Amino acid sequence: MSSMGETNMSRILVDGHGGDDAPHVVIEALSQVLSKKKRSVKFGICGQPEVLLPALREKGLEEVVDIIPAVDVIDMCDPPAIALRRKKQSSIHVGARALRDGEWDAMVSAGNTGALMAISKLILKTLPGIDRPAVSSMIPAAGGSTFFLDIGANVDCSSEHLVQFAVMGSCYLQAAEGVESPRVGLLNIGSEDIKGTDVVKVAAARLRESNLNFIGNVEGTDIFTDKVDVVVCDGFVGNVALKSMEGLAKLMLTQIKQELTSSVVAKAGALLAGSALRRVKNALHPSEHNGAPLLGLNGIVVKSHGSADAYAYACAIDVAIREVEAKLIERTIESMNQMAEMA
Amino acid sequence: MSSMGETNMSRILVDGHGGDDAPHVVIEALSQVLSKKKRSVKFGICGQPEVLLPALREKGLEEVVDIIPAVDVIDMCDPPAIALRRKKQSSIHVGARALRDGEWDAMVSAGNTGALMAISKLILKTLPGIDRPAVSSMIPAAGGSTFFLDIGANVDCSSEHLVQFAVMGSCYLQAAEGVESPRVGLLNIGSEDIKGTDVVKVAAARLRESNLNFIGNVEGTDIFTDKVDVVVCDGFVGNVALKSMEGLAKLMLTQIKQELTSSVVAKAGALLAGSALRRVKNALHPSEHNGAPLLGLNGIVVKSHGSADAYAYACAIDVAIREVEAKLIERTIESMNQMAEMA
Repeated sequence: MSSMGETNMSRILVDGHGGDDAPHVVIEALSQVLSKKKRSVKFGICGQPEVLLPALREKGLEEVVDIIPAVDVIDMCDPPAIALRRKKQSSIHVGARALRDGEWDAMVSAGNTGALMAISKLILKTLPGIDRPAVSSMIPAAGGSTFFLDIGANVDCSSEHLVQFAVMGSCYLQAAEGVESPRVGLLNIGSEDIKGTDVVKVAAARLRESNLNFIGNVEGTDIFTDKVDVVVCDGFVGNVALKSMEGLAKLMLTQIKQELTSSVVAKAGALLAGSALRRVKNALHPSEHNGAPLLGLNGIVVKSHGSADAYAYACAIDVAIREVEAKLIERTIESMNQMAEMA
Repeated sequence: MSSMGETNMSRILVDGHGGDDAPHVVIEALSQVLSKKKRSVKFGICGQPEVLLPALREKGLEEVVDIIPAVDVIDMCDPPAIALRRKKQSSIHVGARALRDGEWDAMVSAGNTGALMAISKLILKTLPGIDRPAVSSMIPAAGGSTFFLDIGANVDCSSEHLVQFAVMGSCYLQAAEGVESPRVGLLNIGSEDIKGTDVVKVAAARLRESNLNFIGNVEGTDIFTDKVDVVVCDGFVGNVALKSMEGLAKLMLTQIKQELTSSVVAKAGALLAGSALRRVKNALHPSEHNGAPLLGLNGIVVKSHGSADAYAYACAIDVAIREVEAKLIERTIESMNQMAEMA
């Protein structure tokens, strides 16, 4: 496990090569964070120095941000297995090794999620008692947001995996978002105990006995309400649900746009209501929600959306800083130990 | 299997007791269908005669619609197991037995979905080669709609079950919607063959060898596009995805409403754009999409939404008529036989 530097300064490494407009978006994000951040943070950027140095110089950051050289670059279309085995000098590999060796406290990357997860898992390993890391997403909900995991790292989960995801999600919301006692729900096809697969039923029984604030089964509709803070499911279900939401949101916004330009009167209305409708659109993809933690790893890794702009990328960096400052790794280990004692 | 009357007249039985405003909505729907229908249809209504007869008289339908007496009424909150075992004289039980005995060709009910499925399965049984019936939903998509199954009847499906759902969905779209060669997709977490659970991978391999128009794996986002006509998944995944969509749509419409009444200018815009926004809302819950066929049963059963109005209920009746006229049962048996020969 990486340990924080003696000076209590969080050391955050960013991947210079992931995402749509790297390294410029990444470096602009660093510039934004450095100009605002009151807290003490040291930054490094990982990747090809010949690309990164001129970009840092442009922003006057060459003295402030360390470059950690990495030769290979992973493409968004590289299969994770290829990225894992054939590009061992990629920015993600080099970054994960630096994390493992305690040189840095957290890594942020907008690269290929599958590759980021596979390489992080190989190099950092999982925390004691955790079999599989999970990928998460913060979903907009009435009165706030809901933390949703796993969204695709793990298909075919056991009850124990689901219980571990519940611990990981609960610890994350406590540490990074300051939610005192996160309400944890298990995604199911009905709220009654008899509903669902055996895997889900056994997980629910285990969670009821745990010291988590488990509220029981929740349904797909509940994700968007103020009823639950953490929704746990296997990665197959989570991925399908998340992508279904994305598809529906896109269709609805397209339909609204079409309808609002269908007549002169509707167009006039759309002009007047324009900023209100933009706020709805932004509420569905809030930049503040960028930064999906990869949880369960023995190290802090945060995934930024590939199309994030500098502001959104800075939000992902902020997630990493909060995880480090709130000692998420230590909290998760402690919570897993408590679960083991109760079992 | 129920067989059509000698006169080639479709005989449709409706459940007089399911839904929010039964029997009035049901009877108003019958009245609408009878006033418009050019095709030859005979109608029956199943339930308590003392309730149904006065309601039929009010609409002048007492001579046109047969009453099939049933003593028990299933409540929306009755667990399916209770409804199944303790209310054997319910309108659904009586209707399903009449279907089984060939007295009627199809049944439409707005009752409790779980009870409707459990009773129909017990009394009608499944078609040869089909292990489990499925519940379906028509989902709005760009340029039309996507037929989605299973949405909750079956958790823990095998590859064979998924293959059977694919046949059932494909036959339904051919028969009831006239889609010549429905594009069938298997819901997965990525389009590549290596993605997903073993159950899904084996189902994909079987479907690739079949004579269905199988387009491969599809993702949640694809449901809302014009890429695929039938999307197949197990009932756990389908139920979670469908309820997630419902939750998101509700949240988005609430947010739009809030934003559009947040200022005088936005309110003015909302007034002007009002009918356009209503069309978007209606497009998400089109009355024409009411009527979800329960597929795989040895008999035609259509579920109407519990809150359907008369127009929407009439659409569900129309689904049943189209299934009968297009001989869905015979087509499905034939398609299953072809699958068996190819295996």
